[in-house]
Amino acid sequence: MGKRVAVVLAGCGVFDGSEVHEASAALVHLSRGGAEVKIFAPNIEQRDVVNHLKGSPAEEKRNVLVESARLARGNIQDLAELKASEFDAVIFPGGFGVAKNLCSWAVDGKNCTVNEHVHSTLQAFHSAKKPIGLCCISPVLAAKVFPGCEVTVGQDKNVDGRFPDAETASAIVELGCKHVCKNVNESHVDKANKIVTTCAFMCKAPLHEIFEGVGTMVQEVLKLA
Amino acid sequence: MGKRVAVVLAGCGVFDGSEVHEASAALVHLSRGGAEVKIFAPNIEQRDVVNHLKGSPAEEKRNVLVESARLARGNIQDLAELKASEFDAVIFPGGFGVAKNLCSWAVDGKNCTVNEHVHSTLQAFHSAKKPIGLCCISPVLAAKVFPGCEVTVGQDKNVDGRFPDAETASAIVELGCKHVCKNVNESHVDKANKIVTTCAFMCKAPLHEIFEGVGTMVQEVLKLA
Repeated sequence: MGKRVAVVLAGCGVFDGSEVHEASAALVHLSRGGAEVKIFAPNIEQRDVVNHLKGSPAEEKRNVLVESARLARGNIQDLAELKASEFDAVIFPGGFGVAKNLCSWAVDGKNCTVNEHVHSTLQAFHSAKKPIGLCCISPVLAAKVFPGCEVTVGQDKNVDGRFPDAETASAIVELGCKHVCKNVNESHVDKANKIVTTCAFMCKAPLHEIFEGVGTMVQEVLKLA
Repeated sequence: MGKRVAVVLAGCGVFDGSEVHEASAALVHLSRGGAEVKIFAPNIEQRDVVNHLKGSPAEEKRNVLVESARLARGNIQDLAELKASEFDAVIFPGGFGVAKNLCSWAVDGKNCTVNEHVHSTLQAFHSAKKPIGLCCISPVLAAKVFPGCEVTVGQDKNVDGRFPDAETASAIVELGCKHVCKNVNESHVDKANKIVTTCAFMCKAPLHEIFEGVGTMVQEVLKLA
């Protein structure tokens, strides 16, 4: 029987929700790995709605669960209903929605608050020693909730202009965590905490490299599950 | 130098726009194939907005170009600006948005009308003998615009309950085209018309098989380009 994996989304679209290609990549690799997947998202209003054509906020309100359902083809549940006991692992794709809807990192940085259901989900999997996979900006969730853990968001310097958000690594260190530099095609495994991270779109890389990087994260999570 | 490929989207979300995973799969395989990709969508209002959680229409208006920008990470242009002379091939991912926004198949079936810019785009690539790749429901665009062409939307019978929309194949035949039965991991190449099709989510299959099927379509398109 396949590993039972919960995937937690944060909307649908890189600037105000889950990064679509990271979410899809995670789901493709989970499918290939034979996992039984259920998808969840918090039933809350998005922090904002960004017009992705203009790159600017729109005067609209959208719900994180309803928009995440676009990525889930309608097959999704309220995160409040997630029971860690029914799963072997949990995965959080990235995108600004993680830093806007799942926590307040986008505005508060390392002083952010974490959505209560996201917090309890992370705590439940961690306490049960079940693996947690995160990519892109999602590793800040682990850094905030599990001080002392090891994560990667890519590089801690803007190497070759490919890591424009390299200062995220410093903020992670300021939270008392260890940042491990990795390339886009690699994951870091914090074996003690069973936390697997990869930088994905934190690195400016061709889409298929990001796809493969997310694949390494999924594979490590399935191995630990 | 990589092949220059235009990808035409129809929104963002299976029930009223482009199927997110098909679009992402096409872009991943194009990236892997070294293609230079530009993404387009018509600047028109969506036929409807579907609440993907409930599966029912919402009282809202959204624009196809603006929503497609979520899949394109903001890097997208109005389809009216697409010049076939600047590309070696064009690809249309599927999703209900194709049958609602790019043409009226969802309501009119084989009597549908095709959006003027979609129509002129298809005509321009076809006239220039440049390949056209389509998946899922998108092959109906080719069937409508190029009577006599060969396409697949999977099987013409609901084999093992995996092809619930098998009657689409009959409608394609009624349009004077040849429907070729193929499995989800295969594409059909109409060599005379340089039209490459694969069934994708017209088949109930695990996501990674759909991903690979879209990959075969992309690879055939790049070979013909």
